[in-house]
Amino acid sequence: MSRFWSDHVEGLAPYIPGEQPKVADLLKLNTNENPYGPSPRALAAIQAAADDGLRLYPDPESSSLRDAIAHRYGVMGEQVFLGNGSDEILAHIFNGLFLRNRRPLLMPDITYSFYKTYCTLYAVPHEIIPLADDFSICVDDYVAPRAVAPAGIIFANPNAPTGMALGLAEIARIAGANPDTAVVVDEAYVDFGADSAVALLPEHENVVVVHTFSKSRALAGLRVGFAIGSVETVAGLQRVKDSFNSYPLDRLAQAGAMASIGDQEWFEEKRQAVIAARGDLMQGLEALGFEVLPSLANFVFARHPSHAGPELATGLRTQSILVRHFMQPRIRDFLRITVGAPQDCQRLLRALADLCRSPT
Amino acid sequence: MSRFWSDHVEGLAPYIPGEQPKVADLLKLNTNENPYGPSPRALAAIQAAADDGLRLYPDPESSSLRDAIAHRYGVMGEQVFLGNGSDEILAHIFNGLFLRNRRPLLMPDITYSFYKTYCTLYAVPHEIIPLADDFSICVDDYVAPRAVAPAGIIFANPNAPTGMALGLAEIARIAGANPDTAVVVDEAYVDFGADSAVALLPEHENVVVVHTFSKSRALAGLRVGFAIGSVETVAGLQRVKDSFNSYPLDRLAQAGAMASIGDQEWFEEKRQAVIAARGDLMQGLEALGFEVLPSLANFVFARHPSHAGPELATGLRTQSILVRHFMQPRIRDFLRITVGAPQDCQRLLRALADLCRSPT
Repeated sequence: MSRFWSDHVEGLAPYIPGEQPKVADLLKLNTNENPYGPSPRALAAIQAAADDGLRLYPDPESSSLRDAIAHRYGVMGEQVFLGNGSDEILAHIFNGLFLRNRRPLLMPDITYSFYKTYCTLYAVPHEIIPLADDFSICVDDYVAPRAVAPAGIIFANPNAPTGMALGLAEIARIAGANPDTAVVVDEAYVDFGADSAVALLPEHENVVVVHTFSKSRALAGLRVGFAIGSVETVAGLQRVKDSFNSYPLDRLAQAGAMASIGDQEWFEEKRQAVIAARGDLMQGLEALGFEVLPSLANFVFARHPSHAGPELATGLRTQSILVRHFMQPRIRDFLRITVGAPQDCQRLLRALADLCRSPT
Repeated sequence: MSRFWSDHVEGLAPYIPGEQPKVADLLKLNTNENPYGPSPRALAAIQAAADDGLRLYPDPESSSLRDAIAHRYGVMGEQVFLGNGSDEILAHIFNGLFLRNRRPLLMPDITYSFYKTYCTLYAVPHEIIPLADDFSICVDDYVAPRAVAPAGIIFANPNAPTGMALGLAEIARIAGANPDTAVVVDEAYVDFGADSAVALLPEHENVVVVHTFSKSRALAGLRVGFAIGSVETVAGLQRVKDSFNSYPLDRLAQAGAMASIGDQEWFEEKRQAVIAARGDLMQGLEALGFEVLPSLANFVFARHPSHAGPELATGLRTQSILVRHFMQPRIRDFLRITVGAPQDCQRLLRALADLCRSPT
């Protein structure tokens, strides 16, 4: 604690991202990056934007990108909110939508762990709702009548780190039962097989969907995320953004994301490649005796009946393979493994086969 | 007001940045951009970074850039805090340093107007201290004994939009009289002629200096800012940042800023060119009868004894020249004019000469 810190800073519990070490021959399957890289059109657009005017501020509204995303999703530009990665979007959502007269936010016990960090940062009271024994989200828990309407509901779909997804009918049940509550669906991984809740917006104006260019569009290094919601919800987020940072998206990020959203062919081809590789990886893991949750994301979540999670993660690390492991109740024996290119998955499976052969 | 907004959103007063219209032959002297553009090395570094790994997340700590900045300023890496433009840095400072048991923040009545926006966003109580009649900051007002030590003190140096600067001895007086208070010196414009308060840090650990790559390094389009402070102050800001967004700086911004900080020759040459053009512009304005405040920034702040500020700003706009004008008490007759290249300044002076010849 420093005598210069704000009162709340000592109590913060910062999110710890997956590590980004610089080691030769490292296989990074720990942060759900896309093995195939972004559309070449994005790289060309970035170069053109760099040659043309970095001395000038970017468009503070990212209007062209906003309109391109709106067109892609069949919504109005005023329904799209842009940010410096979906983490910034989520931070503004916690600030702008969830601070409502001390009413609680509802979220699963196992989900993107940054949500709890935001709760601490913004002092958002929250109620943790356990996943079912099979690690699915219990929809009934979110639709049961409550004395006080929650300030918000948030979960990832597909959920992280389980990879399991709710269907749209289930999300509609949650949204319909909580009409005065913002229901935020974090769809960072939705393009790998789940259905986007953007389709629910015409019926459920309380739904807010969060997307990122980091996963299915392979632009993690560029930091672009967006939310889609009702015009009035987005107007509130915009007020927060305009009170925080006029220009969250630099010129290169705006240009690269614009070109990426315009290249559906590349997007579709690489998305399908990841989905195919995921199927092979899940089969390979099951052949080694792993229990693998049914993933619709670009990662799988798996545990071995006779080898502990920390042991396997450490063993993989000695072979320069990084996967993510969470020291958290219920999931400490699971590994979260990013779906890499087929040769990446093969290298991982060979390493795990070695580790699983060793005595327990 | 929406039923989905947080309680405080209706009351926000978002900052309004200078406009960025797309008009042919427009002369933009309204947002203090640098006429000369960034170091060519920055553009080369950006292209190399784009070709190499945008699919991967950036370094969340921006370690290489942080160390390069530390080396440039003769401080430790742990004293440097990076953000997505200095606006994000300032936002985290308001959140992380100024929320202290309802003690007030002190700031001038006339300064960067975003500070008041942050006060509203984070509910920071504040006490506004008027500038002197000559628009200088009254140091005595900040060193007078108070019943309660302020939570913080913030001003820009050179101040905006006046362009006038305090000397280091005066800033040291403020810091010395408030040893338990973070004294934040926003040095967005310092490279155009003022002295950096980084030099005060060894004696005054409460000083926090904020810089940007947008002005003297001509990278407004890239969004990179940084703060330099004591190790413990920066550790507090880092906790806030890590609770908000793991990766505020994308790969291209890190690479471009790294190359920029390494090209001191370009920096020095263009900085001197702006300083020379400022002198000519101030002389030209005075020849037209303007009162010009003594600027050490890359803009000048000037008023004409017989032509109102709004009238002149509107007149310039009809000639496709944008300058900034603030509808604020005490300064409503002033224009804030960015120092452009010499030919830009000449075009501005010709237009103003025409406007000042017309009947008042």
